[in-house]
Amino acid sequence: TMETPTPGASSRAITQLKFQNFSSCVDVSFWHTLSQKKLEEFKLSTSPVKIIGTYGLASNLQKDGKSLKVPARVMIDEGSFRDSKVLDNDAFLIEGLLMNANTVEDFKAFDKRKIIQDAGSALLEDIKSGACTTEPSKLNKYLLLTYANLKTHRYVYWFAFPALCLGDILLHGSAPKPVTDVLKKDKFSSLLQAYSAFRAKSPKNASYFAVTIDKKTGQATISSLSDLKTSLGNQTPDTTCYFGFADPSTLELYPGWPLRNYLAYIHHTYNLESAQILCLRDTADSWTRGSTRSILIDVQLTKATGQSGATATTKGWEMNVKGRPGARMVDLKSVFDPKMLAKTSADLNLKLMRWRSLPSLDTELLGKAKCLMLGSGTLGCNVARTLLGWGIRHITFVDNGRVSYSNPVRQPLFDYEDSIGGKSWKAETAARNLKKICPSMVSEGHNITIPMPGHRLHQSEIKKVTEDCKQLESLIVSHDLIFLLTDSRESRWLPSVMCAAHGKRLINAALGFDTLVVMRHGVRDSKEKSSTHLGCYFCNDVVAPTDSLSDRTLDQQCTVTRPGGAPIASALAAELAISVLQLREVPDSKMTEGELGIIPHQIRGSLRKFELLPITGNAFDKCTACSDAIVQLYLKESWKFVFQALNDPKWLEDISGLTAMKQKAEALLEKDDWELDD
Amino acid sequence: TMETPTPGASSRAITQLKFQNFSSCVDVSFWHTLSQKKLEEFKLSTSPVKIIGTYGLASNLQKDGKSLKVPARVMIDEGSFRDSKVLDNDAFLIEGLLMNANTVEDFKAFDKRKIIQDAGSALLEDIKSGACTTEPSKLNKYLLLTYANLKTHRYVYWFAFPALCLGDILLHGSAPKPVTDVLKKDKFSSLLQAYSAFRAKSPKNASYFAVTIDKKTGQATISSLSDLKTSLGNQTPDTTCYFGFADPSTLELYPGWPLRNYLAYIHHTYNLESAQILCLRDTADSWTRGSTRSILIDVQLTKATGQSGATATTKGWEMNVKGRPGARMVDLKSVFDPKMLAKTSADLNLKLMRWRSLPSLDTELLGKAKCLMLGSGTLGCNVARTLLGWGIRHITFVDNGRVSYSNPVRQPLFDYEDSIGGKSWKAETAARNLKKICPSMVSEGHNITIPMPGHRLHQSEIKKVTEDCKQLESLIVSHDLIFLLTDSRESRWLPSVMCAAHGKRLINAALGFDTLVVMRHGVRDSKEKSSTHLGCYFCNDVVAPTDSLSDRTLDQQCTVTRPGGAPIASALAAELAISVLQLREVPDSKMTEGELGIIPHQIRGSLRKFELLPITGNAFDKCTACSDAIVQLYLKESWKFVFQALNDPKWLEDISGLTAMKQKAEALLEKDDWELDD
Ligand SMILES: [Zn+2]
Ligand SMILES: [Zn+2]
Repeated sequence: TMETPTPGASSRAITQLKFQNFSSCVDVSFWHTLSQKKLEEFKLSTSPVKIIGTYGLASNLQKDGKSLKVPARVMIDEGSFRDSKVLDNDAFLIEGLLMNANTVEDFKAFDKRKIIQDAGSALLEDIKSGACTTEPSKLNKYLLLTYANLKTHRYVYWFAFPALCLGDILLHGSAPKPVTDVLKKDKFSSLLQAYSAFRAKSPKNASYFAVTIDKKTGQATISSLSDLKTSLGNQTPDTTCYFGFADPSTLELYPGWPLRNYLAYIHHTYNLESAQILCLRDTADSWTRGSTRSILIDVQLTKATGQSGATATTKGWEMNVKGRPGARMVDLKSVFDPKMLAKTSADLNLKLMRWRSLPSLDTELLGKAKCLMLGSGTLGCNVARTLLGWGIRHITFVDNGRVSYSNPVRQPLFDYEDSIGGKSWKAETAARNLKKICPSMVSEGHNITIPMPGHRLHQSEIKKVTEDCKQLESLIVSHDLIFLLTDSRESRWLPSVMCAAHGKRLINAALGFDTLVVMRHGVRDSKEKSSTHLGCYFCNDVVAPTDSLSDRTLDQQCTVTRPGGAPIASALAAELAISVLQLREVPDSKMTEGELGIIPHQIRGSLRKFELLPITGNAFDKCTACSDAIVQLYLKESWKFVFQALNDPKWLEDISGLTAMKQKAEALLEKDDWELDD
Repeated sequence: TMETPTPGASSRAITQLKFQNFSSCVDVSFWHTLSQKKLEEFKLSTSPVKIIGTYGLASNLQKDGKSLKVPARVMIDEGSFRDSKVLDNDAFLIEGLLMNANTVEDFKAFDKRKIIQDAGSALLEDIKSGACTTEPSKLNKYLLLTYANLKTHRYVYWFAFPALCLGDILLHGSAPKPVTDVLKKDKFSSLLQAYSAFRAKSPKNASYFAVTIDKKTGQATISSLSDLKTSLGNQTPDTTCYFGFADPSTLELYPGWPLRNYLAYIHHTYNLESAQILCLRDTADSWTRGSTRSILIDVQLTKATGQSGATATTKGWEMNVKGRPGARMVDLKSVFDPKMLAKTSADLNLKLMRWRSLPSLDTELLGKAKCLMLGSGTLGCNVARTLLGWGIRHITFVDNGRVSYSNPVRQPLFDYEDSIGGKSWKAETAARNLKKICPSMVSEGHNITIPMPGHRLHQSEIKKVTEDCKQLESLIVSHDLIFLLTDSRESRWLPSVMCAAHGKRLINAALGFDTLVVMRHGVRDSKEKSSTHLGCYFCNDVVAPTDSLSDRTLDQQCTVTRPGGAPIASALAAELAISVLQLREVPDSKMTEGELGIIPHQIRGSLRKFELLPITGNAFDKCTACSDAIVQLYLKESWKFVFQALNDPKWLEDISGLTAMKQKAEALLEKDDWELDD
């Protein structure tokens, strides 16, 4: 680049000072972190963000040639977004300002001339105000313009290392010369020791400093720039004072970029005609008894211009890879770990929601919520798909069937391969395939038959049914949201009872041929009798659920439905569930409104009319699934109660009080009749 | 079984006649055809269905033992549902009656005693009426009870070969004896030749016949049962008359099942005390000069009972594999060809719809309809999924993007593998994965960029854009239903124009954050100017579509939506499309009602309110997409028109008349102002 002489040029006869540029080096982790910050913190904000970076001394680099054929790098990585950094011995901090555009057009529209000019003016202000004396790190800063395309993982960026232009800087004599031309090796060694101690006290501001050398003893003293005036005042004919700085240059004869603003500082602060500069390139650790890389430069500042802010020009935009002024682009699609990318990308839409539409959306809560799908068929697969889109990452499936040939066209977690030979269990297959869509899913399938009232138990089945009951209950207890998506009325009974008993949130979806109902069961406050809570699936019924499956023709068994019904009911179930989840508070006994809109108790829909109807239904105090009598008996007698209900659904009507109510109603009817006869 | 003596028993000293049972043998193709018929023809009907079957002579079987250790089989297969069958030389037809139950409970509830008794009574009627004389095949029939579980591919069935019981039948002397004991081999050979000619004339009724043998010459004459009375009348001391039948028995000493009802026939028709029976087991082809398998039996009918219908008992239910009375079950899941099963099973739900809910549904039409998905993202994938459920088997995808990591969680035709490295084109991947779900799909993907107004063309792009336009138009022309599912307003413009110009049915779906709109564009009757047809997506706009993408932030580019929006909008789009398709008639310019319910022009939905609203919007005569001016210009100038629109969207407003209208409106407004000032 323009500012950099050919590396390896070894003529010592230079008279005009040039500087080695900084070259930016961005670790992949920086882009990954930027993406995350953009998604989760910055969102649409374009306010400049303070970041940090580091540059190193060339000391540790291989020294086979006098000029190391590597650039002086400023590194940024994921740590650049933190306030501070643990620094290596040869690493120095450089502060930066990140300006991230929302669109590539915005990026192009950045007024680069003004941005760097503003940075230069601010720097000049800081020099003049003395801010740079107390905080020398202000002399060495960078700017970074970025546009991060989070969808394609392409990043456009442009670095600037703003430098005030002083015009030509001349050198006294034929300098630079190695520091060991002036200092004996042991004295230089003790200088490095002293610098090391100095740096340990204030690492952040240690890149610029003053060195006073006792001409007689060769003893070096390191002081801060704030102390420099004193040092200069104390300067005797017996001492020499050097302006020292940590020099990242890898060129033998040319200092690095940080000297530019340092010279401006020296020029503006001290109005000196000349200054001796120590370009410190070694550390106490790296410099043992070998040749030193540090050099001394005697600069003449008489021709320096740019005294005032108005005339000071600033330069420093980095060249692109073609060596021309321009932005750089990096495509990290193939660099990022696919699984990691998949994980972060899967949440992309969700994160974007928080930018504008739903700032309060608790995506963390969604990522942690455990969802249980009772039924892994048309509804189960579709609900899981929508939950996936909502960032739900923990889904457990329950089903007792195997994937059949007719399933894949309607059940979007299965394909033809899964159905061959009818060997694959639906629950397990759904869980496995969910992970194929989103590898970060936590998902498993359980082959459980939900016991159903009216499906009379044989003695031989009791052990299996007990196990199924236990497993079902333990799954319900260990999950946050229960989805009831089975294909018969009676299979919904036991989960309804269990959820009522354990105060679990249950979302229920059921399909007719061209109708659908989606509802959230009322959540009981288990501590008290509550008859005002919202109803359950069975609250409208005056008969107990019973065997409706056995004697049904194929079209009744298969719950023949219009294909559009399931995706609609499933999406509504998922949306209702997310709304409920965002509510956080249990119980949610009232029709309410949340961040996402209304949270109805039930939604009934018709495809014939293209109609949805949000409605509310209160709990029925003689309900065969959620009434106090039933729930208390379940909590008290557990499986004994369940088995009795399975064998005799009518008994459910007795204990729920339904029978008594019916008899009373009939008695009233008879009485009416009798009175009419009168 | 009870009726069958031990095979291979070789004592010739039997005096009581027994019969070898028929054993049923059902080819897999029978069950497959039954399933199809059930789905497509029978549906819920349980009316008995006439089917046919065949049984063979043992002549072609290996003759290493005198008793072949194989059963006498009645075979049924897919051909059994046809009226007739091409028969092998040794194959004979047997008619059957299929009774298929809708549920396994119905199957169990079949009154088997009554069913076979009824069959026996009918047979006796046919014997007495003389119907069996003219149609002897009535003597040999079978019944088949079935229950076909089309979901699990398990079939339960029970055969009966109804036989009238005559009590004990005794044999004269020590018969049976080989036919060659009576007839010389050459005479038997000519008998077989004569029979062959007889059978050729009436294959269906050739299983029972009469044989007259000239005692002197040994010459055999074959006649039908109708001619038998004559034969008996013509019987002279010089001739012997035999009752012949095609005998499937594989046992040396015992005749097969068809003889049972033959004896009842003989007994009832001729009231004979004895009869000579020729059990014909050889054919002219199979019997060369080897030993004959055919036998002669001299039966005594004096002890035969069951003279009247009232006392005649009928037996014949087949034993199950355990040798006990009971149904047989066959599980064909693993036998059927998986691809074939997948194909038929995929349509299962659809076929079932026609049983009850939608008898008029034209599934054939659906199977043939060609659907074009413009956009293969969230909407495209979801719409395709629902169309799959509706039996659509021809879907073409268009998109210009690749599968990204953020796609699979929302776009249900992609999984994680597809997104790795962002290398897979969406359209092609969607097509490929659709075939993984349903191998019989006809699907392909096209990587086409839909040209958009306001996205100014560079000279270098013209060739590519022209090609894209041509390909897009040719796809639109070659498909029946066009789905417009892109993610920007301006990308919907050109397909809207093309569909309007070609009179194609277009279904449009678009998403807001928590809102959705699904609509069918009005279909123009291209022959006349029509301003009363339904509107298109652009009819409500008073600005032309233009570049809205370039300068958008990530959340705007990604069309951030609530995850439930897409499956709902997509399902509605598919349902609307199917309703439109079932209408058949073009144009469908009015809000109407079809088999599936109302067919609105637009459905607008809100997830905030859980609301759907069917609405109608008429076409706007200055619409920038569907107005006459635009459509005519497109038809006339084609790509020239398109390019001009791409480069200058405002021009669209000019030619559609929108500009003039706006100016007029402004003029009016100014006038108003002026008047107000007055
Ligand atoms: Zn209830
Ligand atoms: Zn229009």
